[in-house]
Amino acid sequence: MSYNIRLLIDCPDRKGLIAAISSFIAMHNGNILSADQYVSDSGRFFMRLVIEGEGFGLRKEEFGAAFTPLARQYSMNWQIYYTDQPKRVAILVSKQDHCLVDLLWRWDAGELPAEIPLVISNHTNAASRVEAYGIPFYHLPVTKETREEQEDKILELLDKYSIDLVVLARYMQILTPKVVNAYRQRMINIHHSFLPAFVGANPYHQAHARGVKIIGATAHYVTEELDAGPIINQDIAHVSHRDTVQDMIRIGREVERRVLARAVRWHLEDRVLVDGNRTVVFE
Amino acid sequence: MSYNIRLLIDCPDRKGLIAAISSFIAMHNGNILSADQYVSDSGRFFMRLVIEGEGFGLRKEEFGAAFTPLARQYSMNWQIYYTDQPKRVAILVSKQDHCLVDLLWRWDAGELPAEIPLVISNHTNAASRVEAYGIPFYHLPVTKETREEQEDKILELLDKYSIDLVVLARYMQILTPKVVNAYRQRMINIHHSFLPAFVGANPYHQAHARGVKIIGATAHYVTEELDAGPIINQDIAHVSHRDTVQDMIRIGREVERRVLARAVRWHLEDRVLVDGNRTVVFE
Amino acid sequence: MSYNIRLLIDCPDRKGLIAAISSFIAMHNGNILSADQYVSDSGRFFMRLVIEGEGFGLRKEEFGAAFTPLARQYSMNWQIYYTDQPKRVAILVSKQDHCLVDLLWRWDAGELPAEIPLVISNHTNAASRVEAYGIPFYHLPVTKETREEQEDKILELLDKYSIDLVVLARYMQILTPKVVNAYRQRMINIHHSFLPAFVGANPYHQAHARGVKIIGATAHYVTEELDAGPIINQDIAHVSHRDTVQDMIRIGREVERRVLARAVRWHLEDRVLVDGNRTVVFE
Amino acid sequence: MSYNIRLLIDCPDRKGLIAAISSFIAMHNGNILSADQYVSDSGRFFMRLVIEGEGFGLRKEEFGAAFTPLARQYSMNWQIYYTDQPKRVAILVSKQDHCLVDLLWRWDAGELPAEIPLVISNHTNAASRVEAYGIPFYHLPVTKETREEQEDKILELLDKYSIDLVVLARYMQILTPKVVNAYRQRMINIHHSFLPAFVGANPYHQAHARGVKIIGATAHYVTEELDAGPIINQDIAHVSHRDTVQDMIRIGREVERRVLARAVRWHLEDRVLVDGNRTVVFE
Repeated sequence: MSYNIRLLIDCPDRKGLIAAISSFIAMHNGNILSADQYVSDSGRFFMRLVIEGEGFGLRKEEFGAAFTPLARQYSMNWQIYYTDQPKRVAILVSKQDHCLVDLLWRWDAGELPAEIPLVISNHTNAASRVEAYGIPFYHLPVTKETREEQEDKILELLDKYSIDLVVLARYMQILTPKVVNAYRQRMINIHHSFLPAFVGANPYHQAHARGVKIIGATAHYVTEELDAGPIINQDIAHVSHRDTVQDMIRIGREVERRVLARAVRWHLEDRVLVDGNRTVVFE
Repeated sequence: MSYNIRLLIDCPDRKGLIAAISSFIAMHNGNILSADQYVSDSGRFFMRLVIEGEGFGLRKEEFGAAFTPLARQYSMNWQIYYTDQPKRVAILVSKQDHCLVDLLWRWDAGELPAEIPLVISNHTNAASRVEAYGIPFYHLPVTKETREEQEDKILELLDKYSIDLVVLARYMQILTPKVVNAYRQRMINIHHSFLPAFVGANPYHQAHARGVKIIGATAHYVTEELDAGPIINQDIAHVSHRDTVQDMIRIGREVERRVLARAVRWHLEDRVLVDGNRTVVFE
Repeated sequence: MSYNIRLLIDCPDRKGLIAAISSFIAMHNGNILSADQYVSDSGRFFMRLVIEGEGFGLRKEEFGAAFTPLARQYSMNWQIYYTDQPKRVAILVSKQDHCLVDLLWRWDAGELPAEIPLVISNHTNAASRVEAYGIPFYHLPVTKETREEQEDKILELLDKYSIDLVVLARYMQILTPKVVNAYRQRMINIHHSFLPAFVGANPYHQAHARGVKIIGATAHYVTEELDAGPIINQDIAHVSHRDTVQDMIRIGREVERRVLARAVRWHLEDRVLVDGNRTVVFE
Repeated sequence: MSYNIRLLIDCPDRKGLIAAISSFIAMHNGNILSADQYVSDSGRFFMRLVIEGEGFGLRKEEFGAAFTPLARQYSMNWQIYYTDQPKRVAILVSKQDHCLVDLLWRWDAGELPAEIPLVISNHTNAASRVEAYGIPFYHLPVTKETREEQEDKILELLDKYSIDLVVLARYMQILTPKVVNAYRQRMINIHHSFLPAFVGANPYHQAHARGVKIIGATAHYVTEELDAGPIINQDIAHVSHRDTVQDMIRIGREVERRVLARAVRWHLEDRVLVDGNRTVVFE
């Protein structure tokens, strides 16, 4: 089966980096399909290379040994992904299912290169929608008292299904550091405001009370601090005095769906690198 | 000279309000050119009527006496404006002159129905640009020590020129309540962020540090609390990791110009009513 | 059951129209919840009134007789709708089901005040998705030879189910004047370009060939002339040289969904009036 | 003076291209500040490299000789630009001066890295605005009879001032192939519609007549065929039934200014490569 290779690199910027990397690829007869590069203000170099699998001289199991000396020389962090090994995604959701339904439809339509082995919810309402796609649905209800226990079950499932990416598709529970740390930079949340405005609960109510003329949504990696992780994507919609909180919720659903789907697709295509609390997105 | 009449009304909502008002106009042979109406969640009625001046049976000096009984009956706040008496606008600016230049160009092109009798700045750099339009330019420098004195001079000038609207076109001084109160709902500020995010100084630096993917601008009426007054207009632009603070400042200038100009035009056309800390904008 | 009344009017503009109409409503003890009004360049008056059902003195069966004399006096076209009688919508679709799925989800989420008694397709692939919502799915395949016969079956079904609005949710067959005339101003199509650019087949291929930097979608009422009917809503997305035709199709799906859903919602809420080949949309 | 070097390359795609080019730069001790690359559907490779001037081992006069063998080997088209030699821009304008004023302001504010040695107009109204920036203004009126003669004068001026880029900032005359050919891919026009819709005269009137809900603007390189050259940038604004042709003209001015300024800046920063009738824009 034909596939491509995606190589992500970040390291201190130095002269000759691109030459060194691209020569390494050329030496092994690799055909570079696309190359993106960025140097941050603080002098850190980020790169994303897509190499054609066919004809590339290094087998999957050989790449690491061959690339390590170069990586060491330049103090690189690097990751390699193969498009014939799509990421395995778990979606967590609560009652609001618009993001879930949207992701499932896009996945089914081929927009999201992933496997979705399971959906987890603390409610039951989305069960039939999920199962219609042939995806196992796990109902893990939660109360203040059972939080830890429920999270352990979640972690167990994520582990059992070898999950690469956790998508919080309007999952309205705050996760403890235990879970957050286990999926650092591998857990995407959609927050229904243009962060950093309206952190926390009921952002549309907050927005309406403040009388804003735009509402928005933010997809970000989850960190310990609530709604403060690296932002991947944001967008907004215009509202007017006529829009009630209910209208904002309706309008916002559309923005949330779009923003989350884009962030998830970018992550699945290995387009997102993290630079401290900022993201580098090679669109 | 042909002119139109703009009647703004707000009062508690009641049955028969539109009939009462439009019948009053019809009784005096008025031709309604446009009518906009809105009832807030809290049950307050807002209306903007544009009536053709020609043929209307009430002279300017007669309207008040004729309308007052109806207004009293319904507990109306009301204001009336005549398009042959354009508002008189003062622009206050500091070093950054992009909003000023934009407003002057639009005014000259006929986009802003107003008179601009003066521009005030705490710097001198914009003087020649302003004077090229034949508009008096006042340089009123300010330090911590001279703030009160300078504000008194500003108030004196605003008074002398019978100013109806004060536009803070990137005027980087915080005004004291004395000035704010004198021009309540008649003073528009442009803040260079999508409020309520990034209140206060250096919002683009704040935005860059937070790693947001959108930047924005907000035009609002000035109140005592910094950047917290009723919002008239907001818009955003998308940014990426490649955009430095300087890029954000450049991109933001465009958003600021657009957002401020729209808010000022709406105010000049009597399209903005204030509902607590929110605005009703009849676009 | 509590309901509202929507009254749509268009007629030659005359003095006193708003007074006459609103006084009529007031006389019958009606509470006007919202009123929108517009006078076109050509001097035609358009109005949309929403009146609270409760307390209104005219019963459904009485309204016509009571209103007709006024309507005659001002040469009004008028229509009245009751929110407790939601419109009955038929969706026609071909292979591409993204607009269909989106409409069904929104309908299920309460965003679209309608009944959807059936979906018709010339393909079978969407059957299970439709039936999951408990909606009958009719498969009516069509070839050049059977077009007339198939259209007759469509008309029969639309008639049988008393359909008020036909939505062509990427239905890729050109309908004959017979069908078009039967649902004039009651049939909405989504075209996958920003009309009038790229009329007809394969607009994304056309767009890619032309090298445009935006793609778009247009929802319009269907008329005899292909893609030339009154436009209800349009929107766009930005694209770059990196976007292939396939990318444009993916990006476009999102725009199509959004544009069609908005047009359908506006129609269902009786916000769209037709003014020649233009629409008046009271958002 | 510190400067950067911009190297633009296009050639048939081949394995090892990036390695060959970046190794060439590394061999000469060049520090690559940014690298963008793209392979078109048709298999053509496009690249933009920015190299730090300081420390680069090839002097300006040496680069050509050193790079030619590599360029020949890969059949490259290539161009090199130095940021200490900004492009020389001539602006052509007719009566409408909003794009001109905007470009001049941006240039003065440092947004456009260029020299502007002259402005040419077939009208006189913009003279004082141009001269306020210390830029020579040439009035070259034109009639059907004098077109050729006037164009010769234009060409003479462009030649005399060693112009690199001609910006048609709402210059409402159609230029003959003689001028077009002399500045192929070096002449940018702003058309006031979202092309390919509304080619030619009075696009806002056309847009209003068609009843569109968006209007737009397109910046493109000028070719012999009217409004058909490679598109660099496009954007739109939403309009409603309330917007008259005059409103559209006002709203459109804003879009035109933005779209043209962006296209000009991209060209000045050597971000635009032409691929047949399409552009590759490395933003």
